[in-house]
Formats: sequence, C-alpha cells, structure tokens
Amino acid sequence: MTTTQAQTQVEQWTNLAQQLRVDSIRCTTAAGSGHPTSSLSAADLMAVLLVSYLRYDFDNPHHPNNDHLIFSKGHAAPLLYAMYKAAGAITDEELLTLRKRGSRLEGHPTPVLPWVEVATGSLGQGLPIGVGIALAGKYLDKLPYRVWVLLGDSEMAEGSIWEAIEHAAHYKLDNLIGILDCNRLGQRGETMLGWNTAAYAERAEAFGWRALVIDGHNYEEIDRAYAQAMKAEGAPTLIIARTMKGKGVSFLENAEGWHGKALSKEQEEKALAELPHVRSQIFTVQKPENLQPAAAERKPLELPRYASGQEVPTRKAYGDALKALGAAYPEVVALDGEVSNSTYAEEFAKAYPERYFEQYIAEQQMVAAAIAMSVRQRIPFASTFAAFLTRAYDFIRMGAISRANIRLCGSHAGVSIGEDGPSQMGLEDLAMMRAVFGSTVLYPCDANQTAKLVAQMAEHGGIVYLRTTREKTPVIYSPDDEFPIGGSKVLRRSENDQATIVAAGITVHEALKAYEYLKSEGILVRVIDAYSIKPIDEETLFQAADETKQCIVTVEDHWPEGGLGEAVLEAFTQRAGPLPRVVKLAVQEMPGSAKPMEQLEEAGIDAHHIAQAVKALIHR
Amino acid sequence: MTTTQAQTQVEQWTNLAQQLRVDSIRCTTAAGSGHPTSSLSAADLMAVLLVSYLRYDFDNPHHPNNDHLIFSKGHAAPLLYAMYKAAGAITDEELLTLRKRGSRLEGHPTPVLPWVEVATGSLGQGLPIGVGIALAGKYLDKLPYRVWVLLGDSEMAEGSIWEAIEHAAHYKLDNLIGILDCNRLGQRGETMLGWNTAAYAERAEAFGWRALVIDGHNYEEIDRAYAQAMKAEGAPTLIIARTMKGKGVSFLENAEGWHGKALSKEQEEKALAELPHVRSQIFTVQKPENLQPAAAERKPLELPRYASGQEVPTRKAYGDALKALGAAYPEVVALDGEVSNSTYAEEFAKAYPERYFEQYIAEQQMVAAAIAMSVRQRIPFASTFAAFLTRAYDFIRMGAISRANIRLCGSHAGVSIGEDGPSQMGLEDLAMMRAVFGSTVLYPCDANQTAKLVAQMAEHGGIVYLRTTREKTPVIYSPDDEFPIGGSKVLRRSENDQATIVAAGITVHEALKAYEYLKSEGILVRVIDAYSIKPIDEETLFQAADETKQCIVTVEDHWPEGGLGEAVLEAFTQRAGPLPRVVKLAVQEMPGSAKPMEQLEEAGIDAHHIAQAVKALIHR
Repeated sequence: MTTTQAQTQVEQWTNLAQQLRVDSIRCTTAAGSGHPTSSLSAADLMAVLLVSYLRYDFDNPHHPNNDHLIFSKGHAAPLLYAMYKAAGAITDEELLTLRKRGSRLEGHPTPVLPWVEVATGSLGQGLPIGVGIALAGKYLDKLPYRVWVLLGDSEMAEGSIWEAIEHAAHYKLDNLIGILDCNRLGQRGETMLGWNTAAYAERAEAFGWRALVIDGHNYEEIDRAYAQAMKAEGAPTLIIARTMKGKGVSFLENAEGWHGKALSKEQEEKALAELPHVRSQIFTVQKPENLQPAAAERKPLELPRYASGQEVPTRKAYGDALKALGAAYPEVVALDGEVSNSTYAEEFAKAYPERYFEQYIAEQQMVAAAIAMSVRQRIPFASTFAAFLTRAYDFIRMGAISRANIRLCGSHAGVSIGEDGPSQMGLEDLAMMRAVFGSTVLYPCDANQTAKLVAQMAEHGGIVYLRTTREKTPVIYSPDDEFPIGGSKVLRRSENDQATIVAAGITVHEALKAYEYLKSEGILVRVIDAYSIKPIDEETLFQAADETKQCIVTVEDHWPEGGLGEAVLEAFTQRAGPLPRVVKLAVQEMPGSAKPMEQLEEAGIDAHHIAQAVKALIHR
Repeated sequence: MTTTQAQTQVEQWTNLAQQLRVDSIRCTTAAGSGHPTSSLSAADLMAVLLVSYLRYDFDNPHHPNNDHLIFSKGHAAPLLYAMYKAAGAITDEELLTLRKRGSRLEGHPTPVLPWVEVATGSLGQGLPIGVGIALAGKYLDKLPYRVWVLLGDSEMAEGSIWEAIEHAAHYKLDNLIGILDCNRLGQRGETMLGWNTAAYAERAEAFGWRALVIDGHNYEEIDRAYAQAMKAEGAPTLIIARTMKGKGVSFLENAEGWHGKALSKEQEEKALAELPHVRSQIFTVQKPENLQPAAAERKPLELPRYASGQEVPTRKAYGDALKALGAAYPEVVALDGEVSNSTYAEEFAKAYPERYFEQYIAEQQMVAAAIAMSVRQRIPFASTFAAFLTRAYDFIRMGAISRANIRLCGSHAGVSIGEDGPSQMGLEDLAMMRAVFGSTVLYPCDANQTAKLVAQMAEHGGIVYLRTTREKTPVIYSPDDEFPIGGSKVLRRSENDQATIVAAGITVHEALKAYEYLKSEGILVRVIDAYSIKPIDEETLFQAADETKQCIVTVEDHWPEGGLGEAVLEAFTQRAGPLPRVVKLAVQEMPGSAKPMEQLEEAGIDAHHIAQAVKALIHR
C-alpha cells in the first residue's frame, strides 16, 4: 500500500467510524433509550472490520461462506444497526425506528433481522455460540469463513465465556476471533479488571489463545491486529482493545452514569457538533468466495426395533435411535456434556466421531454449540442429565429468542434414578422446558416410543426436549406404532371407566400396575400415556374426562409444579365448561438415597399410591 | 520435627489413607454403587489434611471458628464419609448404610449430615460456595478459619469454577485453599487437560491465585503444600495434585471404565488384599481456637412508607426496604450481579458497603455466595434481572438440597419492561422458582406491599423469591396493611360478582382498570391480588370461585406455563369437587421492543383484554 492509499484507507475508516457514532447517537435519541456509549467505544473497531476484513454478502445472508459477526455485547445493537445502514442493508429511516413497536430493530439484536443469526443481550452468550459456529466451519462445513465476536469487558466475568475460551483452544479454532471492547466501565461502575488489558491477555494465553493488546481507537493497531488474526494457525485470537466508553464525545468519554442512557435532543445536538459531519454514506463490504460445503445425501432411516417384553431403558433407546439418525441424515450432529456413556450419546460418538463434539462438563457451552449448529443448518442433539440442563437454562431461553432449532435430551430424570440422590435427579426439567417459548416437551415410557419420538425430533422446529429414564422399563409398544408429537396413547379403556390415570415415562408402568390392582377390586379405569407433555393431547383428555365421570389422577416423577399435572390442568382451560376433578401425584418431599422402586414408593407415585388416589377420588 | 517424629507422622498419614481407601471400597461394595475410584485418588490428600491441617470440632459442627471442608467433587462422598468415621463422628456400622433408604449417607453429600454444610454432586458448585464462605470469614466473621475445597479435574471445565476463581482473587481470599485432585480421568474418558498440571497452574496464576503443583500421593509434597497454603497472604491457593484414579489397587489404577462403579464382593476382596490391613482406627482432629465473631444487636425495623397516589416501581421499594433491613438487622447482607443501580440493591451497597458484595456479571457465583452466607448464619439477599436468574438455576435447585435460606430478587420481570426486548424480560421466572423444593414465590404490585414482603423474607426459610417490576406503579395500599406470606388481598368484591380476576404484580393495576370498565357496563367482578404465588391463598380462591359462579380469569406477565395461572389451577386440585372454569391470560407470543403499555396490550394482558376475557367467560 502506498502512503496515499494508506491515508485514503484511514480516511475511510475515520469517516465510517464517525458515521457509526453519529448514527448510534441519533437512533437512540430518537428511541428515547438504548446504549449509545457502549456503541461509541467499539465504533473504530467495527469500522475497520466492516470495510477491510469482514466478508459478507448482505444481499445473501444465507451464503454458506459468509463470515459471521456476533455482538456478544448485544446492548451495542445501535452500532450493529448503524453498520447495517453503512453497508446499505437498511435505510436511515428504518434505523430511526429503533426500539419502536413493530420495528425489526429491537433493543437487543434478534434474528427478526436477516443478518442477525442469534439473539444476544444476555451477556456471555455470543462467544460460546461463536465457538459453535467456528466448530461447524472448521470440522463440518470446512469453509474458510471466519467468526468475529465483539465482546464487552463486563461479560468476561461470566463463567460461560471461560467455557467458550477453553473449548475454542481445545478445538484449535483458528477461524475464531474475539474482539474485546475493553472500555473499563460496566453498568454500575468499573469492571473487575478495569483497563488491565495485560491481565486479560495473560488469562487468554493461559487458556491457549493468542492475545493481542491494542489501542482500540488507533486504526493502524486495529488493522494490524485483524491482519494477524487472519493468519492464525491452530489457535483462536483474542484482540484486547483498550477503548473509551463514549469515545468521540467529550462529555461521554470515560464518564460514569452514562450506561444504557440515550442522549436528550439537546445533548444529541451538542454531541453531533463534536463529530465531524458525515453524510449517510454507503460503504462496500467484501463478498465471500463462492464456496459451498460438500453435500451429502440422506439415506432411508432405519430405526431400532425392540421386541415386546424386552427391558430397555429409554436412555438406551435414545442412543440407538440417535445412531440410526446419524446413519440416515448427514445433517445430524451430537453433543454431550461428558456423560455420553450415561445418556448413550456415545453410540453416535463412536459411529460418527466426525459429527460428535464432546462438550465436557460445560453445559452452557454445549447448548450454545447446539444453537450454533442450528445456525449452520445442522440438526443438533445435545444431551446430559436432565438435572444439569438447569445449568444452561439461560441459553435455552435465549435459544428460543434466537429461533434456534435444537434438540435436548435430559437423562436420569426423576427420583427413579435411585441411589445417587437428589443432586442427580431432574425434578424441575418439565417445568423449566415447558416455560420456554415455542418449546416441545416429550417423555417416552418405552424404547419403541423413544425411537419414534427421536426420529420426529429431527424434523421438528424450535426447542425440543426429550426426557429419558435411567432404569430399564418393559417394552409395551410395537415398533410399528406411531406416536405423533401432540398425541397420546390410551392404554386401557372400557365403557365403564370410573376415572382416568394420566401418566408419562416411568409412571406409565406404575399406572398399568395400578390398573390391574384396581381391576381386581372391580374398578375399571382409563390409562393414558401422555408422552407429549407439550403440546398435550387435549382432545383425548377431554374425552377421557367426559367418559370417566370427570375424575382424573395425574402421576409424575417430578416436583408438583409445572410438570405433567399442571399441563393437564392447563389443557382443560382451553375448553368451555367446568374443569374436571383432578388429583395430582408428584414428588412432594426431598428424596434421599434409596433403590428406584423404594424412591417411587417414598414419593407416593408408585402403583399402590396411584390405586389409593383413584379410590379416594371416586369415593369422595 | 525429628526424623522419628516425621516417620511417625508419615506412618499415621499412610495408615489413615489406607483406612480411607479400604472404607471407600467397603461402603460402596456394600451399597452396590458409588464412586470408589474417585475416592481413592484423593485419599492421601485428605489423610494429611484431616490429621495435620484441618481444625474442626466434630462434636460441635456449628463452632463459628471451625474450618470448612467442601467436597466440590461430591461423588467422592465415600471418602468424605470414611473421613467422618476416621474422626470418630460415625460408626463403621453407619458407614455401611451408604446409599440405603433412610441413611444419612446419601450418594452425594447433603446437610442431612451435621458436618456437611452444602449439598454437592452437581459439579462446579463447591468452589463458588467456598468462595462465599471465605468472603464471610474474611470480611464478616473476621475469624481465622480456613475453607478447604476438594476439586475434581473434570469440573474445572465448568464456567462457574472460573467465576469462583476470578472472585476469590478479586477479593484476596487467602483463607481459601483449593485442592485439585487431578486424576486425569472423567466419567467417560480423559479430561480436556489430562495430567497437564502446568496448564492448570498457568490458568490459576493468570487469574491471580498462587498455584502449587505436587504429586498427590507424596506425603511430603502434600504436607509442604498445605503448610505453604496456610501462609498465603492476599491471594487464594490452588494445590494442583497429580493423582491416579483408583490409586492403591492395581487393577483400578488409572484404568478407564471404572468411573462410578462399585467393586463386586470378589473384586473387593482382591482389592483389600492389596491394601495393608488397617483396623478401624480413630484419629485425632485438631479443634479450632475458641473464637467468636463480634456480635451486633438488632434494632427496630423501620420500613419505608409510601403515600397513596405516589408512583413507585416495586424494584425501588425493594431497594428502600433492603436498606431499612440493613439498618435494623446486622445479619443482613446483599449481593448483586453488576446491576445494582437497576435492582436498587445499590441503596444497601451505599449504606452498608461492608455487608455488600459485588458479584459482577456472574450469577452462578452470586447465588453460590448467597448460599454460603446462609451457611454462615447471615440473611443474604441477592438480586439481578429476573431473566438472568435463569443463569443460576442449577445453583438455586442445589440450594434447596442444601437447605439454604436465601432470598433472591428478580427485577425487570415481564414484557412490561418495554423497549429492551425479550432477552431482558423474565418470562419464565415464576415457573422456574415455583419448581424449586420448598420455595416461596412473591410478586408485589405496590411499594408498601413490597416493603412488607421484603421484611418477611428476612425471617423466612428456604429459597424465597421476590419478583419486581421495572415500571412505576401507583401505591394502592396503606403502609400499615399487612401482607402475610400465603395470603392475598381481595381488592374488589360485592354480593353480585359474576367472575373473579386473579392478578399479581403489574397486572393487578390492569385488573383494577378492567374492574372499572366492566362496572361501567354493569358487570361486577371480584379482584384478587395474589401477591403470594407460592404458597397461594387457597381459601380466598375457593371462596371467590364459590361466590362468583366458578368463573375465574387469571392474568400474568409471564409465559402461560408454570406461573400464576397454573398456581391457581393447582390450588383447586387441593379440594374435593370440580374445578372452576378458568381462563388464563398470559404472554403467548414472542415480544419485540415497544413501550411498556404497548407490550401489555400486544400480549393481551392489559385492562381491555382482561375485560374482554371476563365478558366472554360469563357469557359462554
């Protein structure tokens, strides 16, 4: 580059950065809220990135070889939207709709915008997702795209960031570049490390990253750092940029009390006067090389089949079915949190090691990577103990806002795991997963049912959750039975049923035993296997209530709140007329250690207690 | 020490370590399950600790100056219980009840045992809790006790560990000693770092810890490391001990496939033959110095009072009330996740900085520290946005198993926050918190009510959750009104009510507007403020249903699952007879950005939609 070219280049960066600043201020002032100062600190970093390093086709956001840009500091959304405007993707008019009802420009980025792949705004999530995309890029797509993640310094306190950092180094993700906007100030004051950029560098290096410390407002240093990062080999790069919050406006620079505050009209005027007047210029963004990932054909799916009378844990059937899916669908990938020999994800891992990503004991990173695989059009299945998915609830919640399509499997659900005790028992997972927007919650009771549900999960959108059981359970269905999502199975019925038992998973088998016991006493009951907890099969429940004297007993291996019982109650609010009489059996006391059957008995959810509850209900 | 003394000392350590190994094997074989090999790797480390460094009065587990020993690798419970036996705290007979129904010796440690302070077994939690206890020791109790945390190497992959590590260094916790049992093998294979002890050391040092790498089976090295750790100044110490899983038994040493497996009777015999025969010896554990923390007197509580007609956000009232509690009760401490100027915990922080602990954006560490404060008999209040408490759900769940008494406040709940968008809206917090064992869930609608509830939280056990609102809401109650936990307020009633509206928090105000609107059309309804979501006021609901034609409309700023509506439905399962007709209004679609009132309207939970729902219900 000649000196003149370099000057022109710096001029372009300067113009763009100032335009990004101006627009970040303008749109937040128009909105009356938002985060202008957090946008200003990163404006120079993003200006150089946008016109000199990013390879992205804004007309084709689904181009497989596009770079990925994730604002892990999602509150800097005004800067991101200003970049979209600078790239010609949105108009100035749309920019000024920020945060208004109906606008695509929400307070924090969501995939309502075609160029946003994942929602951010809960800090510490962008980098873990970036790690997942980089994994896909390096090991699945095998395309030269890069993943750029803009990080805030406050979010470096989140453990999930360090899960991401360790995984990125472990998987040698040299296609991942973190840009840490180290502006020193969090929401309510200084961060733990302030401007101690050396400390960030030391930490990143100790985890195996290459770290580059720069002045985040010096174009030459920014430029050099990006160029170096592009040449990374075998390790990810963290660019630690010392910046100033509010940079470019004298009364905002490095000032406390300005986090998340829009400028008033008067303040805006004062601020813009300090920024060289820049027009609404459109800048050229480089397009990616036109490369495509290798395509692979689907083969017919051959699910495992289990013979009646066999005793098979549903978690084993999950593993078997996942392996079968792997054989048929090249898009299926699996992840597990270091318990694949318990969840049986190991079957897939052994058969398709190139599509299996060990996530170690880092459940947040695991769910983030699953969301990333969804971004890269894969069909991810991620598994761990149901109890430990609680670790990743914020990621699951945000996954729904990201409109991600991910499949989660929680094994070892309920007290029926036996001796390991309450720390290992998922007893809140149904409540947690039901309360996720657009989620699907499945809970099979036998191996054939599990296989059919796993097959459907592959084709089902949104956050889909499967709950599996540690213990062996008898195979009660034929491998040819169908179990549509939203359906249920009526296992026992007669003209003279006096009540309905609604069960799912392990309690289906207890309900069937209770049926026999009650029948021997001359009491006939209906038994429903509600394997689809959300959506639940309302019609079958309504019919059962009407045909069994409005008497329903629900039974679940879960706390009383938010699980099967409440799902059944909720269903009845969907029709006119009074609700039936419902008795809920669930785990009411804190369990300890005991054998599986002892646990069911202790919790009052075994056959004996079900039969007692039915009798009490029909006699009252 | 003379050579003979040293030899005697080594002999004692050897004897104890072998006894711990023998007992870890015996009790797991008797149980038929458990983790002997994970116990064997740490036996030497724990032997030296127990007889030479730990200061603990087993007859007085509540001695304020006892050291604290936390098994962050909770699955090594057999080793912990073997230590209790060696210290004379439990008999051999009790040891052999491990994992059996009714035994105090659960599969993973819980406070059912008087010497266990917190439940572990969900990995990555012991160290963050240890950090909290060390915080209490150094800054509140000001006692010289130490906190010893035994860590597994697999759990070093959990982000929560790194939150703990950064906090421990930040707060200069030289009373905290981590003992990393680096046995290389996780559940299903090698850990990310294997025996790369240098990498662990480098990471710990980069975060500001002192790191000591030792051979975890060399008594001299162990002894020296503990002695060094005791002399730490200004920084915590991590002892990184290279160990062998299954150490001491040839066929278990460093062998894969042995995680979480008990030996058969035959294998046990073979193993014990390899371990020098040790009797059931009782070893002397040093008692702590008899020091007490400085006592402080309570003063009368003077809660803030708000005048009718004022507009005050409940989050502000939370801050005001918390400050008032701080003035009255010296045991009250507060923690916040870097949003104290939003949750208003900053009022307490400013008034009582010595009892406020900034937890930065590390919600897992925040809840862990709250649990720790409960262990140290403090009354902790921890706050962040309701949405971000999802980050700590596993810690909250485990807190219940720990029988911890903690108070959590989630602010900015619901769509009513307005423009910030869904990433910042707690819309699953009620479901999440209800499904915690023994939890209490409160949701005030005005400032006086908030103050009264916050006061009660201080005296209430278990996991207590308060949901607050970002927006200002009018004061509708007198500062002299009482709001007992488990109660509700009937705000409107008549002899001719045709339906009941059950609301809480922000929707109470919408319900009151709907009342006026319906009244103007000649329809009278009852309005209930269900500020106590769990436990819910069943009697008032039952009476309302019976007196208002069994017609109920519930309305909540929350997803439809697991919140107020389902709590109301659940209540009716507690009485005989059919359930009433219930119509649930809740947030059904993914929100974007909009003004608070626009959000309520869009979600169908504003006054207009409530009135419509009432009319539809009574006319159908």
